[in-house]
Amino acid sequence: MSSMNLEPVTYTPIGEVHCDFGEPSNPKEMRNALSTLEIDEKYLETFEGLEKFEHIIVIYHIHRALGYDPKVHPMGDESIPKRGVLATRSPRRPNPIGLTVVQVLSIEGNQIAVTGLDALDGSPILDVKPYEEHFDSPAGAEMERDPDYRPREG
Amino acid sequence: MSSMNLEPVTYTPIGEVHCDFGEPSNPKEMRNALSTLEIDEKYLETFEGLEKFEHIIVIYHIHRALGYDPKVHPMGDESIPKRGVLATRSPRRPNPIGLTVVQVLSIEGNQIAVTGLDALDGSPILDVKPYEEHFDSPAGAEMERDPDYRPREG
Repeated sequence: MSSMNLEPVTYTPIGEVHCDFGEPSNPKEMRNALSTLEIDEKYLETFEGLEKFEHIIVIYHIHRALGYDPKVHPMGDESIPKRGVLATRSPRRPNPIGLTVVQVLSIEGNQIAVTGLDALDGSPILDVKPYEEHFDSPAGAEMERDPDYRPREG
Repeated sequence: MSSMNLEPVTYTPIGEVHCDFGEPSNPKEMRNALSTLEIDEKYLETFEGLEKFEHIIVIYHIHRALGYDPKVHPMGDESIPKRGVLATRSPRRPNPIGLTVVQVLSIEGNQIAVTGLDALDGSPILDVKPYEEHFDSPAGAEMERDPDYRPREG
């Protein structure tokens, strides 16, 4: 055994998702609908400039997920053989952290309107990040091998 | 004031990053180097099948980040005006959660060798997910508006 540091980590949500889906629903319908990210007013200053980005990443706590099975059918489709839950996007996973790239429609005060999110109403928001190709796309590592590559701003 | 649920959320890391970078370093150099994700053996079954994916997303705790400033110069570059820290990829943010798309080189036992990661040695790993275009690329929402779109497997 190596001596890994597996001490628990605690985060305080910065806001909450609002949308029309209070119960697990068709993910495609959820992602095609509007969601609002309501950010705690004390963080207002921290997302100044986020409107420069068309796409952002929302990291949220999947608050309705309880426990997990080590192996599952991807997308619950029994025609696909079971595999490890970490090799799927199942919401029921060891740490139920949700992650979606969404499109920003508007930012007014502490309300960020987005489309593309698949989080249930009331999901606690842990972090938002601008989507940046060099970090977030499979081609990103290639870009960084090019000494002349510079991230795009905005 | 709305009544948001901002109760703290606690996660137990599933593993730890190993790499040659113990101190903050040039992100490009870090991403071009090899890193190993050592996963707690009790989760062995949960990542069976992850080898089907060329790219995965690593979500980790930025354990060396202490506190944050509400507004910062992006990439520490003083020639770029300050903006809200959540509109940058600064590691010092309200919840120091790191997120990088990496390329899988090999999986042997509980060791996942990757390139493209920008996490310091010893970073606690919170989650790994297969990279899936319809969730993780800006074009994803468009794909899901197409009723005939089906996610690719593997």
